[in-house]
Amino acid sequence: MRMAKAEYTLDSVRAALIREEDSIIYGLIERAKFPINSQTYTQIPHFSASLLHFVVTNTEAVQAKAGRYKNPEQNPFFPENLPPSLVTSYPFTQFLHAGTASININKSIWKFYIHELLPLFVASGDDGNYAQTAASDLSLLQAISRRIHYGKFVAEVKFRESPQDYEPLIRAKDREGLMKLLTFESVEEMVRKRVEKKAMLYGQDVTLNNDDDSNIKKYKVDPSVASTLYKKWLIPLTKDVQVEYLLHRLD
Amino acid sequence: MRMAKAEYTLDSVRAALIREEDSIIYGLIERAKFPINSQTYTQIPHFSASLLHFVVTNTEAVQAKAGRYKNPEQNPFFPENLPPSLVTSYPFTQFLHAGTASININKSIWKFYIHELLPLFVASGDDGNYAQTAASDLSLLQAISRRIHYGKFVAEVKFRESPQDYEPLIRAKDREGLMKLLTFESVEEMVRKRVEKKAMLYGQDVTLNNDDDSNIKKYKVDPSVASTLYKKWLIPLTKDVQVEYLLHRLD
Repeated sequence: MRMAKAEYTLDSVRAALIREEDSIIYGLIERAKFPINSQTYTQIPHFSASLLHFVVTNTEAVQAKAGRYKNPEQNPFFPENLPPSLVTSYPFTQFLHAGTASININKSIWKFYIHELLPLFVASGDDGNYAQTAASDLSLLQAISRRIHYGKFVAEVKFRESPQDYEPLIRAKDREGLMKLLTFESVEEMVRKRVEKKAMLYGQDVTLNNDDDSNIKKYKVDPSVASTLYKKWLIPLTKDVQVEYLLHRLD
Repeated sequence: MRMAKAEYTLDSVRAALIREEDSIIYGLIERAKFPINSQTYTQIPHFSASLLHFVVTNTEAVQAKAGRYKNPEQNPFFPENLPPSLVTSYPFTQFLHAGTASININKSIWKFYIHELLPLFVASGDDGNYAQTAASDLSLLQAISRRIHYGKFVAEVKFRESPQDYEPLIRAKDREGLMKLLTFESVEEMVRKRVEKKAMLYGQDVTLNNDDDSNIKKYKVDPSVASTLYKKWLIPLTKDVQVEYLLHRLD
């Protein structure tokens, strides 16, 4: 059996982030299949939280038993009381600095997702498909979370490339200096443009003769939502994770 | 709150089938992110079946509690012992003929999916992401199952449009005659071409300047797999469901 162990280089990390864009765009489009279905987000009987909370905690428990969180690229939304894995463990590359596994900003992701992102691209209404809605929320939340926490790998790769640039800032706990070192406006601009283009290509209605104008402006998700998601949340939060990671890099 | 209750007409049924194509293509592309990861399909310790079986039965149980299978468009892979829904029930349109809910060919879907479809488009190898692999299998299996079992709605719409064409064949239990009445070669050909085109558009690598040749032939999933999937399995199995449904339509 061929093993395909992850290797982390600047190129592989960049490729993973670009591939994750696709998963996020598909996830937006799939979630937009359903209206807001607000009952998914309000408390359900016999459970002290929302249906989404119920579906996410219970599905994460199933996934934990199947070994999902053995991979350091995966971060659960509810890490408390996750059951152990039943699966023979796989030798995942231990690339990150010890102690940084606990960096987990899924609570912030959960909040902006429900309260700010969903209202931007989901229609009003209720079609009763709460379970399917929660399942598509979970899948999109996981893709977003993976993107943002991938910042740990980005930071480690960058640190290993030029520790001399980072060490003084880390020792000085200079968050602002680190953030500046990690910010490339032109790259961020390119990412935003690319995800907008992906949302157009992946979210178009396809017919066998659709080179006419009629389909050009009909997208399953407004492409500007993809760039807003990256501009407002994914890019800044990934950098927050990077800074947090680097601040613990010399512990 | 606006209710968006499903109405079933020839147009709405056609639109649902076309939208489901997108979910299936995204699902193929997402599954292709991982290599075959054969440990997902072999027996795991402390459980008498495969990891995929474990993830599917347990995730279906979570989804059943969240009310998924109250919607007659949804058919579980393991209907035995599903827990009851915890959610206030929604008045789903009761459109199908009584007694046809039990038509469920997910066992056949499960078999062709694992043994025939996966080897067509998934790379060899093992990257340890068995839980994520099983989750993406489940999501794709559900999209495929929904497409195929949607045949019940297609059949009911067609029956209501011209019962006089169907009733004699149903009374004669004439499977072949029914199959002939449901077969439109030119439509099937169009569907196969459209899903191939979708696989090209949704599975391309997108860069900000990719009008050059270099990207043209690089797809995340070979587009011919999408048309094979429809030709070999989805179209014939949807028709099998339609015939099975019609045979019970006058019960």
